[in-house]
Amino acid sequence: MTAIARAVPVDLPFQRLSALVEQDMEAVNAVIATRMASDNAPRIPEVTRHLVDAGGKRLRPILTLAAARLCEYPGEDHVKLAATVEFIHTATLLHDDVVDESGQRRGRPTANLLWDNKSSVLVGDYLFARSFQLMVECGSLRVLDILADASATIAEGEVLQLSTGRSIAVAEETYLRMIHGKTAALFAAATQVGGVIAAAPEPRIQALRAYGRDLGMAFQIVDDVLDYGGASAALGKNLGDDFREGKMTLPVLIAVAEAKAAGDDAALAFWTRCIERPSKQRDGDLEEALRRLAEGGALARATERARGYVTSARGALEIFPATPLRDALRDVAGYVVSRLS
Amino acid sequence: MTAIARAVPVDLPFQRLSALVEQDMEAVNAVIATRMASDNAPRIPEVTRHLVDAGGKRLRPILTLAAARLCEYPGEDHVKLAATVEFIHTATLLHDDVVDESGQRRGRPTANLLWDNKSSVLVGDYLFARSFQLMVECGSLRVLDILADASATIAEGEVLQLSTGRSIAVAEETYLRMIHGKTAALFAAATQVGGVIAAAPEPRIQALRAYGRDLGMAFQIVDDVLDYGGASAALGKNLGDDFREGKMTLPVLIAVAEAKAAGDDAALAFWTRCIERPSKQRDGDLEEALRRLAEGGALARATERARGYVTSARGALEIFPATPLRDALRDVAGYVVSRLS
Repeated sequence: MTAIARAVPVDLPFQRLSALVEQDMEAVNAVIATRMASDNAPRIPEVTRHLVDAGGKRLRPILTLAAARLCEYPGEDHVKLAATVEFIHTATLLHDDVVDESGQRRGRPTANLLWDNKSSVLVGDYLFARSFQLMVECGSLRVLDILADASATIAEGEVLQLSTGRSIAVAEETYLRMIHGKTAALFAAATQVGGVIAAAPEPRIQALRAYGRDLGMAFQIVDDVLDYGGASAALGKNLGDDFREGKMTLPVLIAVAEAKAAGDDAALAFWTRCIERPSKQRDGDLEEALRRLAEGGALARATERARGYVTSARGALEIFPATPLRDALRDVAGYVVSRLS
Repeated sequence: MTAIARAVPVDLPFQRLSALVEQDMEAVNAVIATRMASDNAPRIPEVTRHLVDAGGKRLRPILTLAAARLCEYPGEDHVKLAATVEFIHTATLLHDDVVDESGQRRGRPTANLLWDNKSSVLVGDYLFARSFQLMVECGSLRVLDILADASATIAEGEVLQLSTGRSIAVAEETYLRMIHGKTAALFAAATQVGGVIAAAPEPRIQALRAYGRDLGMAFQIVDDVLDYGGASAALGKNLGDDFREGKMTLPVLIAVAEAKAAGDDAALAFWTRCIERPSKQRDGDLEEALRRLAEGGALARATERARGYVTSARGALEIFPATPLRDALRDVAGYVVSRLS
């Protein structure tokens, strides 16, 4: 890599993609603002505005818009679908706040600290219902089918995470199913419905779905690696959140597997104590975990896994002719992993 | 009323209605059992079975089945819609358990005491998603539209209840909007979709909707009156639950309005203290509330309001020819209020 290439901001691909769907995205923001209002329950926009203003990147709705445009969709319903996808995502965050008892999200206090658990659950339900209304307005049963399946997969993934949490015996296959539900299922639906609403040929629809799914898998693995630091500073997410909750994520999973293979009883004892009884963690445990994961190479190997999904996501787009939009989508996949370096 | 009529069990109309859709209901139970299973997350049926086994009356799915049959529906999709309606109801109960911190439902410990808040939120989400899949399978955009609107109204009603709770200033109109969201919206959707799936003439569809809505309004008012005792014993619900949570329900609303009109400062001070700061309630407060509501006539006047909705619900069915099914639906409306006597 040349000095010039290194000087380029790492999120340039994302900015390029955003710029290509900028007008559509303004329409999405207008739909979001209108639809989260409630004459009957003014508390609702109070809670949602907090989350929406927190200014996530809106990656998911941008993907829906880009997928529809990539398939030369001439209509307007992709705007509603993009808003749908963002509402589902926001609702999931609200319910996740309740269940994870996490104190921060995107660097700001979570909704349930500012309001309460009750509001988070019910406002999340409201956003799910609003997203449901938006999709019905688009009038495509296939779109509804895809988003209904995604909703079920998301919920299954979250429950699976609950019931398999705090055990170092979690199989890698289970972890992959969990992150598929937690993240990749909505990414896959977000890109697929863009193709469906555009009535694209079936192979292109499937390619968009594969792209979204693999991008989502990479995105979540990177998130899990970043929880143990990666090389980047200034993260919105607290370092070590997953560790303190005893969550089995890919870096720990790899470290545990390697400790078993090497017969390293000290390492196994460390992970068992910290993951299975997180309330018993002591000062210095997080630092030890960071050191073990970095020096043992688990972070590097997890990053390799993410890169594999990125390659696969990029490959799925080969079916489309080379256009600035296709190339921006392809490069965004690489950007996801570049957050680590 | 003759001695013989008094000897008839009060839930006879409900039993008659159940018997008329018994075979369909067996199919609904089979769909519920199949669809609440999850290969990926075995925790899910654990939680839902608890609720389903608790054996609510399944009034809502029975209404959907009966509405479809009343419109001479020859198909099978009403079974899926009935299961949909029951899943939405069960999901709402699960989320309500989280938000109300209530210790009992249907006389058994609530799911969130047996498991935890996390499971209640996420399994509720799973049931919503499953209900969504079931409706999509029926392939009717109008049905989807009705149930999406009902979902939004339910969530708005719950949020409204949160934000207006613990204030004796709640207007009757606000209370009515709240119980419409909390209960009547799903009843209305349950009966309306039965007519829609049967492709009934529009006036019949609207009549079924009006019947469900007014039945739901009566049902919730009766529930609110029963929380202060009614005349019946052996209720699954704890007496005084609403009072202890500081919920403004119709009996208290009426008592407060009458105290204001009469300039009864002692009564106003009592209700203000108990409803606006429920944690400061003292021994004997519930007994005083029960006495004030019974002797002051607020329970009787709230019951009258419920009777008004029952009359309206029964009237809506006049558009249908007299059949055993129509008459059973009509009589079930009366049964709802008969729980009070």
